[in-house]
Amino acid sequence: MIRVGILGATGYTALEAIKILLRHPSVEITAVTSRQEAGEPIASIHRSLTGRLDLAFEASDIETIAAKTDVIFSCLPHGASAEQAVAFLRAGKRVVDFSADYRLDDLDTFRQWYGDHHPDPDRVGKVVYGLPELFRDRIASADLVANPGCYPTSAILPLAPFLRHGWVEPRGLVVDSKSGVSGAGRTAKLPFHYPECNESLSAYAVGTHRHMPEIDQILRRHAGVEVETIFTPHLTPMDRGILSTIYAQPTRPIDQSAALELLQRTYRDEPFVRIVEQLPATKDVAFTNACHISARIVRGRLVLISVIDNLIKGAAGAAVQNLNCMFGLPETTALFP
Amino acid sequence: MIRVGILGATGYTALEAIKILLRHPSVEITAVTSRQEAGEPIASIHRSLTGRLDLAFEASDIETIAAKTDVIFSCLPHGASAEQAVAFLRAGKRVVDFSADYRLDDLDTFRQWYGDHHPDPDRVGKVVYGLPELFRDRIASADLVANPGCYPTSAILPLAPFLRHGWVEPRGLVVDSKSGVSGAGRTAKLPFHYPECNESLSAYAVGTHRHMPEIDQILRRHAGVEVETIFTPHLTPMDRGILSTIYAQPTRPIDQSAALELLQRTYRDEPFVRIVEQLPATKDVAFTNACHISARIVRGRLVLISVIDNLIKGAAGAAVQNLNCMFGLPETTALFP
Amino acid sequence: MIRVGILGATGYTALEAIKILLRHPSVEITAVTSRQEAGEPIASIHRSLTGRLDLAFEASDIETIAAKTDVIFSCLPHGASAEQAVAFLRAGKRVVDFSADYRLDDLDTFRQWYGDHHPDPDRVGKVVYGLPELFRDRIASADLVANPGCYPTSAILPLAPFLRHGWVEPRGLVVDSKSGVSGAGRTAKLPFHYPECNESLSAYAVGTHRHMPEIDQILRRHAGVEVETIFTPHLTPMDRGILSTIYAQPTRPIDQSAALELLQRTYRDEPFVRIVEQLPATKDVAFTNACHISARIVRGRLVLISVIDNLIKGAAGAAVQNLNCMFGLPETTALFP
Amino acid sequence: MIRVGILGATGYTALEAIKILLRHPSVEITAVTSRQEAGEPIASIHRSLTGRLDLAFEASDIETIAAKTDVIFSCLPHGASAEQAVAFLRAGKRVVDFSADYRLDDLDTFRQWYGDHHPDPDRVGKVVYGLPELFRDRIASADLVANPGCYPTSAILPLAPFLRHGWVEPRGLVVDSKSGVSGAGRTAKLPFHYPECNESLSAYAVGTHRHMPEIDQILRRHAGVEVETIFTPHLTPMDRGILSTIYAQPTRPIDQSAALELLQRTYRDEPFVRIVEQLPATKDVAFTNACHISARIVRGRLVLISVIDNLIKGAAGAAVQNLNCMFGLPETTALFP
Repeated sequence: MIRVGILGATGYTALEAIKILLRHPSVEITAVTSRQEAGEPIASIHRSLTGRLDLAFEASDIETIAAKTDVIFSCLPHGASAEQAVAFLRAGKRVVDFSADYRLDDLDTFRQWYGDHHPDPDRVGKVVYGLPELFRDRIASADLVANPGCYPTSAILPLAPFLRHGWVEPRGLVVDSKSGVSGAGRTAKLPFHYPECNESLSAYAVGTHRHMPEIDQILRRHAGVEVETIFTPHLTPMDRGILSTIYAQPTRPIDQSAALELLQRTYRDEPFVRIVEQLPATKDVAFTNACHISARIVRGRLVLISVIDNLIKGAAGAAVQNLNCMFGLPETTALFP
Repeated sequence: MIRVGILGATGYTALEAIKILLRHPSVEITAVTSRQEAGEPIASIHRSLTGRLDLAFEASDIETIAAKTDVIFSCLPHGASAEQAVAFLRAGKRVVDFSADYRLDDLDTFRQWYGDHHPDPDRVGKVVYGLPELFRDRIASADLVANPGCYPTSAILPLAPFLRHGWVEPRGLVVDSKSGVSGAGRTAKLPFHYPECNESLSAYAVGTHRHMPEIDQILRRHAGVEVETIFTPHLTPMDRGILSTIYAQPTRPIDQSAALELLQRTYRDEPFVRIVEQLPATKDVAFTNACHISARIVRGRLVLISVIDNLIKGAAGAAVQNLNCMFGLPETTALFP
Repeated sequence: MIRVGILGATGYTALEAIKILLRHPSVEITAVTSRQEAGEPIASIHRSLTGRLDLAFEASDIETIAAKTDVIFSCLPHGASAEQAVAFLRAGKRVVDFSADYRLDDLDTFRQWYGDHHPDPDRVGKVVYGLPELFRDRIASADLVANPGCYPTSAILPLAPFLRHGWVEPRGLVVDSKSGVSGAGRTAKLPFHYPECNESLSAYAVGTHRHMPEIDQILRRHAGVEVETIFTPHLTPMDRGILSTIYAQPTRPIDQSAALELLQRTYRDEPFVRIVEQLPATKDVAFTNACHISARIVRGRLVLISVIDNLIKGAAGAAVQNLNCMFGLPETTALFP
Repeated sequence: MIRVGILGATGYTALEAIKILLRHPSVEITAVTSRQEAGEPIASIHRSLTGRLDLAFEASDIETIAAKTDVIFSCLPHGASAEQAVAFLRAGKRVVDFSADYRLDDLDTFRQWYGDHHPDPDRVGKVVYGLPELFRDRIASADLVANPGCYPTSAILPLAPFLRHGWVEPRGLVVDSKSGVSGAGRTAKLPFHYPECNESLSAYAVGTHRHMPEIDQILRRHAGVEVETIFTPHLTPMDRGILSTIYAQPTRPIDQSAALELLQRTYRDEPFVRIVEQLPATKDVAFTNACHISARIVRGRLVLISVIDNLIKGAAGAAVQNLNCMFGLPETTALFP
């Protein structure tokens, strides 16, 4: 059995990871940490785990946790996450980091978007980006995997093949994304207070969201040149789901069937990426690790539409997919159907 | 023009009161208070007032506020509300108190449910309960009106006629109420965090909710004997609305048409209470000051169903109705349609 | 492998059954029927099955279906369901019937609530009610199981122990239930049109819902005397979940801990029934086969609160639990966690 | 009193128009038509009008309706609407047409998007577009006004000043719009069945929505050259509201304050258009006739964000604003606050 410890286990992505891992035939959850809730049974915070997981939160003592785990899922905020990751790596554990600490290509960009401090600057730019559809080979052997951001996953999967083949201009890409509220995390704040965001839709962090450089940098690897997206996230009154509507300028005229075919060809063997003819809805993939993608041409412009469950393919499902990859298990274990 | 000052104006009931008063031909809003937001334009908190009300929050200085108002709407919490009410009454102002400070019949019951401290104990039990349908005469001449609780309004209106005429047993009344989340107020807390309460229904404060003694005491006045309700509030994933399903044991057999007729006869001339044959939905009365009521007989038991908008008939609309009553205006001014 | 055929597979309960069975290690789905959609790939109706189940709907030809199945899940409407059940039983197949055709104790009651025609009158009253927590022994050997109604499950589980031990009066039981909209099925009708039922709560079928006699009859078996409930269902603006608030008159004074203890003792060994101290929310059990129950005493009255997912424990999950029971598999297979 | 008749009064836009007109001091609603519901009291369909409007639906007999009205609000579908408009104009009535029949500039475009038949082809291209902010002068004297589409209103108001002044390229404009479900009308259909669209977001009619040519043609009048938008509507799980996120390529570098200032200058005197610094949410304008607009510059691209209530500023409120304009009343009558 692979023994998994989950750091920062009070949040929503941790809860989803737990639910998936409870179905996993080769995994045992052996530790869940929370500084604030140390000592409390996990079901006192996550009621849906009542009778399903008999663990109490503990403070994250590296030695104690390391002694009973083989792999760490870190659901801590950036900064805190790398700090712990370093320690667990040093203790010989493998780590899937849900935070943004190791996703970017260089320290300068990290500092510009996340602030000056990084507890593990030397590893920045050397850690594999945990999107198995694009970086499977390097994940298998990795001790540390940077689990992708939710918005980036929804943008990178549809755009990567078009950039790799030079079918679209790498600049002026518009990524208009709509997310459910769980993406904001479990901390009660006024913008996510039910009567504030229910029955309401709003854009936020227009041009200033930290997932923008992440999208650019990962896509750059596929384009071979600088990529520049105009990224606009929106808050949508639903629990979960991301739909990204992406507008790209083709470098030469293409039609819808060519676009769909390129996507189909790219992801033919992928168990979680489905190219669909109809326009997908977030509900089509809710509570699953799937990403559905479709394409349209409108007045010569390529319009790509992708949907994922932000907590699953956008976080916890991706992490388990990475874990399966890291431990040589079938990638769909516990995830599919 | 009647000059209205609103205390504690950052909350949802205050916002609704403002929206109604902005339509009121005889009212001018001259002050809005908030200790915490003093100095901030009101539209910075209530975006929907952008360009509609050009006032800044101010701290509640009695003298300053009194100088520019004729009547005070106090949307402060209990305790704080009576404290201010006393001061404004002393300054010769009339007051509609949205809090529970003056709703109950006696100080002992207040203390049992709200704690030992009451800043104005002598007035407790002497203040008119601001439900014009039942206490119109006393409201007209009152300087201080206790605006009813939202749940009590939904329970008292349907039950009062049956208790007054002795048609139902005054004990063992079951009041099963379902409310939208705005009833919980505007303070961000985990139970009202969108991903916690969206797509979820729960009961809370079963048998311990402070509206239980309020329902009992107001109904006792109609029954002439002690009334005892079993009150169960529920949190429902919607912004606004209360539906109360009420179960009462008839003292002698009655049928549905007799029940509806008694209700109809009681409320025939009321502009805001409608007796309907079909089963009402909260949406039928959303954003209005109406209360719709219907009745059924199931296995000899009387089942009453009532719906209101918790923020309007359950709070701000009732307050304006009281204000109209207090100032000799048509009760429907600014409220209907 | 147990080969399962699903009749009437376009609906929501069928979809949930399919999703659960896709995770079942001993089951293969070999047929899905729909008269109207015959020939269409199942994913064209249920988008969430894209790439997960490669079957097309077929018309329900008994011989064809029987040849490739061991057990039938019938998600057909009452009447139509019994008609098919008879045929498949005759062909030697085992059947889990999701409809109400075999739930009631006698034909007279069936006819009173469901109309004169029953295609298989002789079996009525002889078929086991598929609530394993109460009728496990008979399910194991049954060829035909009557899968319980969603509301009845939420009412019977909490009430059964109190009636069996004579702790509460068997008459005048109030069952006030609130359900998500998926309970209404997948046919587009005005009351379930999004803008009609969103942001709205309503009661419906007060005293006339067909689940009322089902609750009474199943509970009668536990009480040993006639049981009479006053049942009020409500439509709640959420996808799934049922919360039932139940009011019962104790035959002698009991307190909360005694009530909880009786429940705890009754369901101690049940994998899906959890007795909880806190008040449960429907979200605690969403997408699971669990039923959470708590109890309170309010003014001497017993108040029971139960929550289930109407599509899982209230339909598809219960069916798989029954299937596991019928085939000697661990009851939790594919269901838990 | 201006006597208003409403054709096709069973729909949501008609209901909103009625609610606004009931507050209008100079208007009396004298007729409501519906072929299907003729004879039924209007409150039997629109429960929220119970006790507020005592009219029954009638069939649309031109002579009868004309005899008791001064102005007609036609909420009929395109085609049917122009047919009735012609008749009422001939009878000397003034008409506000909610349909698309008279919005486009030429018959060819109408036929391409709406089909071959137009009952009144000669007037096409000669009727004023009822957006008072842009065409106020012509509305005042018009007998027939083409009430704008909901999406076009949300796109035209923010874009018009930038196109008029040549600040942005008139081609390749991306209009990514998100609408609440009420925009789909009151007819029950599967895509708008609560469990289908709740907790889900989807794009629809990408590049094929009929509002696309409407946006282009109205904006062309401001740009002086051909305008070409890439328009993508989305269905959002909420009752009402449209948020449009618009991406335009500036013709020369501009910054955020210049963009906001141009908007501010353009709409300074407009009572319903507010230029806001913060990013607006649909809830800021829900149930009002307001349009809030903000602007950002992201990597040199102009991003405009606008919000309206699709049923009010996007339909019924605009119609009343037009009526006020046509009858020389203050434009805000019954609409503001």
